[in-house]
Amino acid sequence: MPVVRISGNPNISVETKREMVKKVSEIVAESYNLPIETITVLIEAFEREDIGAGGKLLIDRD
Amino acid sequence: MPVVRISGNPNISVETKREMVKKVSEIVAESYNLPIETITVLIEAFEREDIGAGGKLLIDRD
Amino acid sequence: MPVVRISGNPNISVETKREMVKKVSEIVAESYNLPIETITVLIEAFEREDIGAGGKLLIDRD
Amino acid sequence: MPVVRISGNPNISVETKREMVKKVSEIVAESYNLPIETITVLIEAFEREDIGAGGKLLIDRD
Amino acid sequence: MPVVRISGNPNISVETKREMVKKVSEIVAESYNLPIETITVLIEAFEREDIGAGGKLLIDRD
Amino acid sequence: MPVVRISGNPNISVETKREMVKKVSEIVAESYNLPIETITVLIEAFEREDIGAGGKLLIDRD
Repeated sequence: MPVVRISGNPNISVETKREMVKKVSEIVAESYNLPIETITVLIEAFEREDIGAGGKLLIDRD
Repeated sequence: MPVVRISGNPNISVETKREMVKKVSEIVAESYNLPIETITVLIEAFEREDIGAGGKLLIDRD
Repeated sequence: MPVVRISGNPNISVETKREMVKKVSEIVAESYNLPIETITVLIEAFEREDIGAGGKLLIDRD
Repeated sequence: MPVVRISGNPNISVETKREMVKKVSEIVAESYNLPIETITVLIEAFEREDIGAGGKLLIDRD
Repeated sequence: MPVVRISGNPNISVETKREMVKKVSEIVAESYNLPIETITVLIEAFEREDIGAGGKLLIDRD
Repeated sequence: MPVVRISGNPNISVETKREMVKKVSEIVAESYNLPIETITVLIEAFEREDIGAGGKLLIDRD
């Protein structure tokens, strides 16, 4: 604890995930005044046909 | 915001997702008295071996 | 199963929740071709100071 | 309702899922004093590159 | 990691939560063949007016 | 989309939430190469009696 769930589209590289997890964990640890070891981050990918924004699928908005 | 997460089994078509997102977004926008542009919908699929109901996996209930 | 989680701000009435659950459940049941009895809906409320949009808390955007 | 979401890494067998769902459902049903039929369990898998612990991706911690 | 989220109604005692967390953590640790120290459990409460089952609010089903 | 859910304990100030949302949104926007306007952050609080770590409630671990 704390747990951070990041739900986004699928196309980010491992290197980007590495950086994102590092920075987000640091910020959340600092915000909750907890050791970074306590932070769990889950990166979740949704395809564009599984994301709705403004009543439309993302694949229909571009 | 608001965010709607729909967790179901995997076998629905893009056309069905399109309709579901449209209608659910309209209802939620109306319920919260917010513009439909603010509604995010996430459609999440679970295989039948990853769903438990009444203590059994779905694959064991049929 | 399916499970629908609706995360929104807190100020909607029981009557509105009643209508929203009824309509959302009907649409999701129809979309997944399942009996409405199988649909679970969870309504989750976040205060405006706990919602971030575009890098700002909602309380700072109005 | 209740709904139990178990987020873990991907490498567990169907037999293990079967046992886990059975036992977890029994405990949760007993804890909430509800029939086991009311318990839904969702098993969610994250690859090691999508899990952060202590500021690092799991793939970087071993 | 793993993370277990248990979403249920609000009326369970601390003692019941204690037992439930202990047993669920043991089962999940065993299932994923991981030390129990790695298991995070989040207990989430929903009022009966915020839970929909079969298209109705729980407060309307009794 | 993307949506970031941060589940932590309840005792952080509005000012801390403000900073956390700003920084996390910036990092996630940059990681997914998307405008910051598309980022939703949900801050969720769990009391210590509702958090299990290593098979124990947090209130029993201190």
